[in-house]
Amino acid sequence: MAGSTYGNIFKITTWGESHGKALGVVIDGCPAGINLSESDIQVFLNRRKPGQSSYTTQRNEDDQVEILSGTFEGKTTGTPISLIIYNKDHHSADYSQIADCYRPGHADFTFDSKYGFRDYRGGGRSSGRETAGRVAAGAVASKILSMLGIDILTYSKEIGGVKINDENFDRKEIYNNPVYMPDKAAAGIVEQQLKEKMAEKNSVGGIIECKISNVPAGIGEPVFDKLDACLAKAVMSIGAVKGVEIGDGFAAAASYGSTNNDGFSMQDGKLTKTSNHAGGILGGISDGSEIIIRAAIKPTPSIAQTQQTVNRQGENIDINIKGRHDPIIVPRAVVVVESMVAVTLTDLLFTAMTSKMERIIDFWKPENR
Amino acid sequence: MAGSTYGNIFKITTWGESHGKALGVVIDGCPAGINLSESDIQVFLNRRKPGQSSYTTQRNEDDQVEILSGTFEGKTTGTPISLIIYNKDHHSADYSQIADCYRPGHADFTFDSKYGFRDYRGGGRSSGRETAGRVAAGAVASKILSMLGIDILTYSKEIGGVKINDENFDRKEIYNNPVYMPDKAAAGIVEQQLKEKMAEKNSVGGIIECKISNVPAGIGEPVFDKLDACLAKAVMSIGAVKGVEIGDGFAAAASYGSTNNDGFSMQDGKLTKTSNHAGGILGGISDGSEIIIRAAIKPTPSIAQTQQTVNRQGENIDINIKGRHDPIIVPRAVVVVESMVAVTLTDLLFTAMTSKMERIIDFWKPENR
Amino acid sequence: MAGSTYGNIFKITTWGESHGKALGVVIDGCPAGINLSESDIQVFLNRRKPGQSSYTTQRNEDDQVEILSGTFEGKTTGTPISLIIYNKDHHSADYSQIADCYRPGHADFTFDSKYGFRDYRGGGRSSGRETAGRVAAGAVASKILSMLGIDILTYSKEIGGVKINDENFDRKEIYNNPVYMPDKAAAGIVEQQLKEKMAEKNSVGGIIECKISNVPAGIGEPVFDKLDACLAKAVMSIGAVKGVEIGDGFAAAASYGSTNNDGFSMQDGKLTKTSNHAGGILGGISDGSEIIIRAAIKPTPSIAQTQQTVNRQGENIDINIKGRHDPIIVPRAVVVVESMVAVTLTDLLFTAMTSKMERIIDFWKPENR
Amino acid sequence: MAGSTYGNIFKITTWGESHGKALGVVIDGCPAGINLSESDIQVFLNRRKPGQSSYTTQRNEDDQVEILSGTFEGKTTGTPISLIIYNKDHHSADYSQIADCYRPGHADFTFDSKYGFRDYRGGGRSSGRETAGRVAAGAVASKILSMLGIDILTYSKEIGGVKINDENFDRKEIYNNPVYMPDKAAAGIVEQQLKEKMAEKNSVGGIIECKISNVPAGIGEPVFDKLDACLAKAVMSIGAVKGVEIGDGFAAAASYGSTNNDGFSMQDGKLTKTSNHAGGILGGISDGSEIIIRAAIKPTPSIAQTQQTVNRQGENIDINIKGRHDPIIVPRAVVVVESMVAVTLTDLLFTAMTSKMERIIDFWKPENR
Repeated sequence: MAGSTYGNIFKITTWGESHGKALGVVIDGCPAGINLSESDIQVFLNRRKPGQSSYTTQRNEDDQVEILSGTFEGKTTGTPISLIIYNKDHHSADYSQIADCYRPGHADFTFDSKYGFRDYRGGGRSSGRETAGRVAAGAVASKILSMLGIDILTYSKEIGGVKINDENFDRKEIYNNPVYMPDKAAAGIVEQQLKEKMAEKNSVGGIIECKISNVPAGIGEPVFDKLDACLAKAVMSIGAVKGVEIGDGFAAAASYGSTNNDGFSMQDGKLTKTSNHAGGILGGISDGSEIIIRAAIKPTPSIAQTQQTVNRQGENIDINIKGRHDPIIVPRAVVVVESMVAVTLTDLLFTAMTSKMERIIDFWKPENR
Repeated sequence: MAGSTYGNIFKITTWGESHGKALGVVIDGCPAGINLSESDIQVFLNRRKPGQSSYTTQRNEDDQVEILSGTFEGKTTGTPISLIIYNKDHHSADYSQIADCYRPGHADFTFDSKYGFRDYRGGGRSSGRETAGRVAAGAVASKILSMLGIDILTYSKEIGGVKINDENFDRKEIYNNPVYMPDKAAAGIVEQQLKEKMAEKNSVGGIIECKISNVPAGIGEPVFDKLDACLAKAVMSIGAVKGVEIGDGFAAAASYGSTNNDGFSMQDGKLTKTSNHAGGILGGISDGSEIIIRAAIKPTPSIAQTQQTVNRQGENIDINIKGRHDPIIVPRAVVVVESMVAVTLTDLLFTAMTSKMERIIDFWKPENR
Repeated sequence: MAGSTYGNIFKITTWGESHGKALGVVIDGCPAGINLSESDIQVFLNRRKPGQSSYTTQRNEDDQVEILSGTFEGKTTGTPISLIIYNKDHHSADYSQIADCYRPGHADFTFDSKYGFRDYRGGGRSSGRETAGRVAAGAVASKILSMLGIDILTYSKEIGGVKINDENFDRKEIYNNPVYMPDKAAAGIVEQQLKEKMAEKNSVGGIIECKISNVPAGIGEPVFDKLDACLAKAVMSIGAVKGVEIGDGFAAAASYGSTNNDGFSMQDGKLTKTSNHAGGILGGISDGSEIIIRAAIKPTPSIAQTQQTVNRQGENIDINIKGRHDPIIVPRAVVVVESMVAVTLTDLLFTAMTSKMERIIDFWKPENR
Repeated sequence: MAGSTYGNIFKITTWGESHGKALGVVIDGCPAGINLSESDIQVFLNRRKPGQSSYTTQRNEDDQVEILSGTFEGKTTGTPISLIIYNKDHHSADYSQIADCYRPGHADFTFDSKYGFRDYRGGGRSSGRETAGRVAAGAVASKILSMLGIDILTYSKEIGGVKINDENFDRKEIYNNPVYMPDKAAAGIVEQQLKEKMAEKNSVGGIIECKISNVPAGIGEPVFDKLDACLAKAVMSIGAVKGVEIGDGFAAAASYGSTNNDGFSMQDGKLTKTSNHAGGILGGISDGSEIIIRAAIKPTPSIAQTQQTVNRQGENIDINIKGRHDPIIVPRAVVVVESMVAVTLTDLLFTAMTSKMERIIDFWKPENR
């Protein structure tokens, strides 16, 4: 359980440091027969690539993915898919400043505590750059889900305290603005605010929302591997996430049973819910309605203001982190959240195929093989 | 991954339905040499036992635990500890009402979708009664943690919208009131409100907070098995939990880097943090300061008001759930949250013992064995 | 990985000591909708029950199994099946002799080394009695396999050096003799030999063979979770097993490629093999022909002859193990091997359901759910 | 459980096909602070490299390993170590012959059955070339074990029916002959025989033996994760292995309790065994004496003689496999067996660090951290 492998049947293993030679992921348990090319994966990676707007780090990486194994003649073979992304920009930086001290809000101190020392180049393995492997795997999982008719929509719901207005919700707008908000007006206010915060050498956080539609009822395992529990782990494992909620989430804590319960009703011969406070999950199992999950992202810890800290020699020092950093990581984290959700859901969909003996018998009938 | 086993080195497997013969847990990977008796476990179980106040179900269960294996002459032997709790009250109820329909806010529909049918007696495996096994395991984990000097404090932070006032915080008060709040005044207001909601046949939710002190720095595995990610899964896997946050959690999303970052400072020769917005975890690894986690609990779904639903035959019906149910489950869930936190932390503490080669060499030196 | 949980999707957790209150197993991941009663399981347990012939220990246990959870109205519900077997005879013995010394061929010394002390009553968790839980789980797995048309045949192939003659092979004979041999003549010779060895206060070993027919081609995962690798672990984990082989096994090491390769041939429109030296597995994946596995069982270590050993105080002593022990454990181990094979195969059959994307799409089509 | 990840704490994930771009392994859970360079790993890879003698395939690969992540300034950091080996020779072959038919003794048919099609270039993932990743990981595990004073010795014990003579045993001889036998005379006979078999277009098999010395007593987890069970899986997962035995193995099945039991005795104040029929493992746990494991390797299935088979269209055909193949894979498999043993033992050594509470308390004492 060293921590870099995730999933049970659809299993991913990521590796690589921010300023090492390369980063990558091995996807094991991907079914055979899926058309898969590097461009399928590149689309996802481009959504988290640095340097796409003035609000993201200007590090020069094109994040080109290469498939090293697991496909043949354009199709997945069922064997491990090894994906690699070379770091172009890994020689350029000067790390002398951070090599010797503990940046506030970063994992420098905790890595030193755990391992005795650390790869201090750009945060090493604790860098946000680690998520490239997750996103590459997420692209493959998302392809599987789309072949099953499942659709995931993810976007910035709130940045620096500015929320989207649900009445303005426009799915097509998400990729039209650099903050990935489905509300043009809110995005405009956010952009203005980000400029101010950049001038102040400060940073902001926000909330990402993810909606998954067309998930069959019955996904998620009771007790410990509930769908919501697995999603919570998946999303909380992303570096800057400090909170996760499902459906009404924390608001449900202040609600009443009479309000929070979703009634059931037959509509055109189909069972539906009259509301969706539960966010599509009951008892840890999908109920067939839209699954809703939100993640709270903390403000980027790398800020250029003077901060108080301690060096490895145990002396109090002041630190001014140089270089340009993202004043907000929410937009780039959108595809990371989506990827972790996709990987988790794929794994649980596969797991759910053995819940009924009747269907197992049917699956293995000689005439069906 | 059928979902009833949790943990990697310290591993628990729970079983049992609300109205079956018994419930239990098997704890595997518990170290040898711990003094353990049934009374150690009973203390924890008594904290979630029904019938302790007028705000909890009046089901008559004394939840007496029995150790079936894994101890010898009062000490753990290193082999699986099997714990059983017999259901006394499992013959008494009349389930005809719920056998055939889907209660709003419950897992009746999702279990039927997943498995084709369900054990409808009191919710079967999706009942809150399932948590008895978790709590029994949590008692053992907590004993281990206390032997390592680690202390976990858990309580109701908010019920029905009424928050504790941090200025009134009194640890000793927690077990003095039936709602497990560390603030006598807030508890009084909550009790009054609960009486009103019971009269209205309604229910409320709330927030549980858990603080863990004296955890060594270095616990948690980078990337997917981060301490916060594992805690999020552990806590979200509890039936009624709809949200989890660490440190400032969702509030961090509206904060700034300059405010949210915790500085480091030397105090009496020890590295400390000047604040704890992060809740004791940086990069998914404990930093030695207090770990803070909160869980949002939805209002009890079982309410006696008329609700709209559907039966198994696909007909719209009205339902009035009979019997007395907890108008609030937050107080009884306090020990469940604490137990899941304890099990998770124990497992990750054990995992962290192999992070440095130097210490492994020292451990296995012939003179140290 | 504390060692008492086995399997990934179909997962079993056993617990209990030889002379504790009870033993048991929790089966998680068993599909819903299987008719299951205690008698289904009792049939398997009776095959390993002590006291069935003069060649087995006379310990008085009826090994009556009780289902504590996971079934409802006679059917499995998909939730954990908890099975318990109470130890009747656990108060009777006098352990003073073995409490303080290390019996040759037993795990007394290794348990003390690992855990610092041990439950010395009848071997505690290292007793052959531990296999009762495996067999109870094996009964459930076997029921699943038989619903899929898969048949497992297991028997004693060799005891005390006496082999069955393949020309005399008679399936029906297996349960007609107390040594579970499919060859009446060989069984007679073995019985005579056992009487002699009992008179000499000695014990013998033997070889168990297991043949599995009608397994679909395609079961087993490449590289580490090959079908043969998983079977090897499953069978080697049984206490007295010292060797495992598949197909021709060790004989293949002295064979030639031209002899050992099995040709392929079309027979009545079906692909078949012209021989089966491989034992039904190629590249770790079932090929549709009969799977053949053999286990070497060491002689019972408990013998009444004087043996040289050491006590816990580090003194050389002589030991004479009192009481009547099985002079041969092969016959009772037959059902244990069969159970471990059944559990392993069930788990890998479930795993193999996600190897082709085409079949996953078909499985989740709305009209098929 | 897709099969390419192995281990629990020290966890390896291999990927890559015989004629893809590259092969590799990700090692997760490797402790921090180990001096590790590519040359440490290259030594192991060179032991299995093709083209080293006239008895191995003449494929032109130098199997140069590159470390992509997980080390910094020459030391392991505790994060995943990604190792890659590029395939030089992957464009050269003509696969038209095997693309369409099922080679006897190979996994062509079973891969097609499982996945619907296969990467037929040189066997794809089922090629022996897959073991390069295992060996790279084994080099790292072996380095850890040697830092703990543990020594593994592996060699060919028998090839083509020719056994080493224990009286001639000479450890230094192993790498002096191309068949890795510790007996010069036997190696000479084997070489002569191999020339004859090559002339006959035939192949032979053999037995590999592995002896591990200085393993602390107490390694291995009771019941399912016994040391011998885990070793059996590890070794049986290697492509051509058909049997595994521990200590006396199959010979024990024909022995008697009085002969097979190893007595205990005090020697110079230390507990020792008077013999080692058990092969260093009792009840699945190491007893401190030498661990002995043997693997039966089948004859190379690729032979140039005409063989009977079937093509994908279901027609009976004759096949003559072209190209030069190893007439014996035993010598090259020696380091593969050693690697799998090293990985398994490392993982179980780490696991065993939590068996006694007393030592855990000691480990986590503030003064010891």
